[in-house]
Amino acid sequence: MKIKYNLIKTDKNCKARLGNIETNYGTVETPMFMPVGTRATVKSLSPEEVLECGSGIILANTYHLWLRPGEDIVKKCGGLHKFMNWNGPILTDSGGFQVFSLAKNKKKDITEEGVHFKSHIDGSKLLLTPEKSIEIQNKLDSDIAMSFDECPPASADYEYLKNSVERTLRWAERGKKVHKNPNQALFGIVQGGPHEDLRKFSAEETVKMNFDGYSIGGVANDGESKEDMYKAIDYSIPYLPEDKVRYLMGVGDPIDILEGIMRGVDIFDCVLPTRIARHGQAFTHTGKINLNNSKYKEDLSSVEDGCDCYCCKNYTKAYIRHLISVDETFGGRLLSIHNIRFLIRLTEEVRQAIKDDRFLDYKREFLNKYKTK
Amino acid sequence: MKIKYNLIKTDKNCKARLGNIETNYGTVETPMFMPVGTRATVKSLSPEEVLECGSGIILANTYHLWLRPGEDIVKKCGGLHKFMNWNGPILTDSGGFQVFSLAKNKKKDITEEGVHFKSHIDGSKLLLTPEKSIEIQNKLDSDIAMSFDECPPASADYEYLKNSVERTLRWAERGKKVHKNPNQALFGIVQGGPHEDLRKFSAEETVKMNFDGYSIGGVANDGESKEDMYKAIDYSIPYLPEDKVRYLMGVGDPIDILEGIMRGVDIFDCVLPTRIARHGQAFTHTGKINLNNSKYKEDLSSVEDGCDCYCCKNYTKAYIRHLISVDETFGGRLLSIHNIRFLIRLTEEVRQAIKDDRFLDYKREFLNKYKTK
Repeated sequence: MKIKYNLIKTDKNCKARLGNIETNYGTVETPMFMPVGTRATVKSLSPEEVLECGSGIILANTYHLWLRPGEDIVKKCGGLHKFMNWNGPILTDSGGFQVFSLAKNKKKDITEEGVHFKSHIDGSKLLLTPEKSIEIQNKLDSDIAMSFDECPPASADYEYLKNSVERTLRWAERGKKVHKNPNQALFGIVQGGPHEDLRKFSAEETVKMNFDGYSIGGVANDGESKEDMYKAIDYSIPYLPEDKVRYLMGVGDPIDILEGIMRGVDIFDCVLPTRIARHGQAFTHTGKINLNNSKYKEDLSSVEDGCDCYCCKNYTKAYIRHLISVDETFGGRLLSIHNIRFLIRLTEEVRQAIKDDRFLDYKREFLNKYKTK
Repeated sequence: MKIKYNLIKTDKNCKARLGNIETNYGTVETPMFMPVGTRATVKSLSPEEVLECGSGIILANTYHLWLRPGEDIVKKCGGLHKFMNWNGPILTDSGGFQVFSLAKNKKKDITEEGVHFKSHIDGSKLLLTPEKSIEIQNKLDSDIAMSFDECPPASADYEYLKNSVERTLRWAERGKKVHKNPNQALFGIVQGGPHEDLRKFSAEETVKMNFDGYSIGGVANDGESKEDMYKAIDYSIPYLPEDKVRYLMGVGDPIDILEGIMRGVDIFDCVLPTRIARHGQAFTHTGKINLNNSKYKEDLSSVEDGCDCYCCKNYTKAYIRHLISVDETFGGRLLSIHNIRFLIRLTEEVRQAIKDDRFLDYKREFLNKYKTK
C-alpha cells in the first residue's frame, strides 16, 4: 500500500495539526522531524540509534545514491530498507536540490528535458530528468518519492520564478506518468518563491494532479530570508488539501520548525542536527551551545539537563569537548544523537501541546527560553 | 585492590596458558586481546559496542591523554573509567612508546632524567620522566599502569641496547618508587631486542623488583622482523614468574597473537583492528579482505559467514563497501566492531583449545586457512 495521512485534530488557536502517517513500515506521528541519511546512513549513527532517538521517517538522497552505489545495486540488495538495515519508513528526495546546489558553481544547463550537469565527484556529464528521478526512486523503493522540481536560487526574479513554476508543473506531470511502484507514495512540490500568486498557482495546479502528499520547496536553497520562508508557507498552505501530509523541505532550525507547524506543516527534514554536531554544537532549550568552548573543559554536567538521550544519560560536556577537540568521531556521534533527539523531542512536546490546544503557548514559552544571539 | 592473575592451566603440549585476571572492574579471562582506546575512546565505538565484542581490558594512552585533555581534567572527572563511561578494566601505557615513535623524525634528547622532546601537536618542549609517567597514570586511575621504558629502534646495535636495558631498569625502579595508587597494578617491561643475554638480564632484574605483571616490549616499534619478535618472547618468558600476567605490547596480527600465546603470553594490544577497519579491511579466518575491492559491489553476504558480531549479523559487504567508498564513518565503525570481535573470538577459541590441550592443533588449523599472501 501507499502511505495514508490521518488528520487527528487541528489546534483551536492556529493551523498546527496533529496527525499520523500509516506506512508499510509502521505508523508515525506528525508533526515530525526526519533525520537525513544522505548516503543511506544517518552520518555516524546506527539504525538502532536513530530509532532510539524516536525517529519516524528518515530521508535519503536520490542524487547521491544514484551516483554511488547506483540505484541498481540498491535494488539488487533488496531496496533501500534492506540495504541500510532500516526497518522504518524512508522518504527520498528527487535529486533536484542536489543537482542545483552541488552544481552551484559549475555549468549546468536547464532544459525542458531536464538538467544537464557535471558530477560533483568526477566531473562526468550527467542528465537528470523527471522520468529518471522517478525511475531511480522506484528502484530505491522508498516509501515516499518526491517529484523532480527546479530549485531556483533565492535571487531569482519574478519572471524566472514564473517560468520555473510552470516547468516544475510539467516535470511533475511527466514524473507522475512514469511512477510505477505500487508501494511508494509520490509527492508534488509547490514552488514560487515569496510570491503569493505564484505559490497559489503552483499549489492549485499541483493539487489538481492528485499527489499522495505535498511539499513546500524553495525555502532552504541558498539563503532565503526567514520572512520569505514564512511567506512561502503562508501562501501555499491554503491551497493544499486537509487530508494530505504537508512537508517543508530542508528545514531543521527549531524556531523554523515551530513557525512551520503553526502554519500547518506536518513534516520537516534537515542535515542541521548532524552537521552542527560534527562541529561540536548542540541544541539546548536555551539555545545552541558550542562544545569547543574551553569553559566546558571541566564541566561534569550533561549537554542538556533533563534530556533523555544516550549522550546526556552517559556523558559529560568535559568528555565530549575532549573528543571534539582531538577530532574523535565518537564526539560527533554523541552530539548527533543528542541533536536529533532534541528536535524529535521538540515535536513530541508539540504534539502534546496541539492535543491540549496550547501550541501557541508552547511556542511562545519555547521562544522565550531559546536564545539565538 | 590491585589485579590478581590466576593461572588455571597450561596446555600439555606447549607453553600456552589459560588464566584469568581479577580486577576491581570484574574478572577477565586470558589469553586476551585488548582493544586500544588511544584518546579515551576506542575509535568510533561506544563502550557498549566494545563490551559487546567481548572485550575484557581496554588500553588507553598516557601520552595522548597527558597532552589532551590533561590528566588533571580526567582526575576531576572521576578518573578514566568515569570520564569515558567504561566500566571494565583499563590498562594505560607509559607514554614511552609514543614519545619515541611520534617524535621519530623530530629531535629528542634521551637523558638519564627522562626524554626531552617536542609535542607532536604544537611543538612545545616537553619532558617525560619515569616519575611523571607514573604520576599521570596514577591520576588517570587505570587498573594497570606500565613502567616508563626506552623503546629503542629496531636498528639499534647491541651496545646501544645494553645501555638502554640498564637505563630502563633504573627508570623502572624510579617509577616504582613514586607509584602510589593502591588500586592500580604496576607492570615492569622487559627489553633487550633480539639478544638472549640482554632479554635474560632485563627479565631477571625486572622480576627482582617484584612488579604486578610483566610486559615484553620492543617487538612492535618500527619494523622488527617476526623472527626477532619470536626471539624476544622466547628469550624473556623463561625468566618471568608463572603467577604473574605476561603482556606482549603492540601486537595484534592474528598469527603473531597465536605465536605469542604458544610461547606463554597472556595479553595483547594493538590499534590494528580499528586502523585497518577505517581503511576498509576486515579480518576473516581465510585472511584479510579489502572491502574497497569492486568485486564486493553487489555482494549480499556478510563480512564473515558465521561471525556473531553486530556487523556480520546485520550488514552486507555491498553496503559496507558503499559506506567505505563514500567515506561514511559508519563503515569504519562496522568493520571495527567486526575486527575487534574477530580477535576476541580468536582468543575465545584459543582458551577452549588450551582447556582441551589442543592449542597446537588449533593454531595449525588456523594457519592452514589464514592466507597472508
